[in-house]
Amino acid sequence: MSFKVIVLDPTEGCPASKIADEQIVADFKDEAAIMRLAEKCDVLTYEIELANSSALKQLEEKSYPVRPAPETLRIIQNKHRQKSFLKEHRIAVPDFELVKSEEHLHELCRKFGLPAVLKATEDSYDGRGNFVIKSGDDVHRAYEYFKGRQVMLEKFVPFTKEVSIMVARNPSGQIESFPVVENIHKNSILDTTIAPAQISRKVEQKAIRLAKRTMEVLHGAGIFGIEMFVTKKGDVLVNEIAPRVHNSGHYTNEACSVSQFEQHLRAVLDLPLAKPELLSPAVMINILGPEGFDGVYAVTGLDAMMKVPGAELYIYGKKVSKPCRKLGHITATGRTVKEALARAKKARNAITLVPATEAR
Amino acid sequence: MSFKVIVLDPTEGCPASKIADEQIVADFKDEAAIMRLAEKCDVLTYEIELANSSALKQLEEKSYPVRPAPETLRIIQNKHRQKSFLKEHRIAVPDFELVKSEEHLHELCRKFGLPAVLKATEDSYDGRGNFVIKSGDDVHRAYEYFKGRQVMLEKFVPFTKEVSIMVARNPSGQIESFPVVENIHKNSILDTTIAPAQISRKVEQKAIRLAKRTMEVLHGAGIFGIEMFVTKKGDVLVNEIAPRVHNSGHYTNEACSVSQFEQHLRAVLDLPLAKPELLSPAVMINILGPEGFDGVYAVTGLDAMMKVPGAELYIYGKKVSKPCRKLGHITATGRTVKEALARAKKARNAITLVPATEAR
Repeated sequence: MSFKVIVLDPTEGCPASKIADEQIVADFKDEAAIMRLAEKCDVLTYEIELANSSALKQLEEKSYPVRPAPETLRIIQNKHRQKSFLKEHRIAVPDFELVKSEEHLHELCRKFGLPAVLKATEDSYDGRGNFVIKSGDDVHRAYEYFKGRQVMLEKFVPFTKEVSIMVARNPSGQIESFPVVENIHKNSILDTTIAPAQISRKVEQKAIRLAKRTMEVLHGAGIFGIEMFVTKKGDVLVNEIAPRVHNSGHYTNEACSVSQFEQHLRAVLDLPLAKPELLSPAVMINILGPEGFDGVYAVTGLDAMMKVPGAELYIYGKKVSKPCRKLGHITATGRTVKEALARAKKARNAITLVPATEAR
Repeated sequence: MSFKVIVLDPTEGCPASKIADEQIVADFKDEAAIMRLAEKCDVLTYEIELANSSALKQLEEKSYPVRPAPETLRIIQNKHRQKSFLKEHRIAVPDFELVKSEEHLHELCRKFGLPAVLKATEDSYDGRGNFVIKSGDDVHRAYEYFKGRQVMLEKFVPFTKEVSIMVARNPSGQIESFPVVENIHKNSILDTTIAPAQISRKVEQKAIRLAKRTMEVLHGAGIFGIEMFVTKKGDVLVNEIAPRVHNSGHYTNEACSVSQFEQHLRAVLDLPLAKPELLSPAVMINILGPEGFDGVYAVTGLDAMMKVPGAELYIYGKKVSKPCRKLGHITATGRTVKEALARAKKARNAITLVPATEAR
């Protein structure tokens, strides 16, 4: 697109460095390195919630354009702050409350009813910061699990579907939404995204309105992943916001008239946003590091995978596999959601990650 | 896709190096460097006809897999050898003959009739090796123009359309074709590709059959761009073959179920080929270096370009602009060819390349 890209990442040769023009190898919190990056760039953006929002705020005060706004990141980074902010702005969210003590946690469990979800408010992702309390017996263990960290209890929403929307907004105020998609999590980690979501037109419209309203109250330009719960009654609540391209938006590469990645660039560079259209039903299934080994891996099964029509393989190029680490994904398109799902499953099942030493 | 890619290119930081894992900086003809590359790779491929076919042949003799086969490259590299080969295998081509002397050229002009095209048989591309002889007065100038190089005269085909097909073949013998597209050249350089070609079903079938037969006689795996002429009577003749991804196949990124680039990788790695489907009409227009300056350039007009729906911009990242150098392209999709064409033109007209110093 004619832009020069510099990435800051602690891992030398990280996946993004392969397609960037330059990499600054530094910790995400390294203020001096962030400043070096800022001096080389016209616009700064981030794609991890662990970014240093206070360092970014200082840059903003010195008039470096940071998008989305560091204040938006600061709100989103802390799950309690995020939910409080949404609630204040009358965006529907599940009930939640900060936990002050183990005694207080017992009280809240009685108040919300069980099951309920205990969540670390910061530095948690891919379910690593969630503990589902199913009975009174779990309370002590759950409290101990997060010992020393700020936690909140959230009422469990008996959802029938989890859906999400990627929405972009540029500094000029243009907002454009991608289609509503459906997400299936396993062990609190995204496993499958189905585009479009198999929901009624009415629920779809509710989700789109909710996502738009969320974007209106959040300041800052960029693309956002807005995850929502759909209840049995057809109510839609915001679960979580990601201020960046999102795993549930990977399907846009194959199935939309514009990808979430290009839309994000357009947004942070204050260019006109594209109006995303879904060109084909699509299903994305993640490829996670298998249980049982940590280390350099190889991909096997390409031959069988590539026999599946409409299936595309992405291996991100992370050097090391760890259990549950997101290492790649498969997106399959099809004439129907059913066909796309069957293809994605077949292609996913064909692929196995093995320790590199076993590969030949 | 989980593959590691090493490129050999004489320009440090060349466009391909940005997405490759490693670059060997060396001339395309540098045998020692080619050997270094071979030792690091499981499979070798090339995407320029200037590749060193004799060095590649030596590698093949030492059992390094080179795809397409060096012999295929050797045939294609020399336009006279290419046409002779096709003719021997009963593939329809325009009449042609090697020129032995200026006197002989006069004779051939009388034999074929004018206009006729004088072509350098080697090291020519983007029309730089073509000279159209319109009248007897041009003969001397044309002959002098190629002084010292091997030349052939080709009968001018009064074509109504130029079309092309990307066809892939893997070592296992699977052959898969992309749709027939229509090409418009300006000054012998590709300007516009229209997908699908606006031709009758009958001509389309003829073109597909001709492309398939060409693949059957050519040995070697990979993707090939087969350029053809369509005459007023509806005959189809092969004009030229490119043993690589091709400018007229760039539209496949947006408009097909698989891109020419992925299909090429599948082919050279002996993986199952995808069955390409056209998902949407599309038009590609090239962005060439403007007349009047050589040097570092900047791209302007992004704002207007990005307002055009369905238009995608590619700037390859070549550092220096020269008149007629291919620096990028725009692909636009649309519900109809007419809409795609209007969008591509509008988007292309919005973009201007200017000397970098004028950009700010």
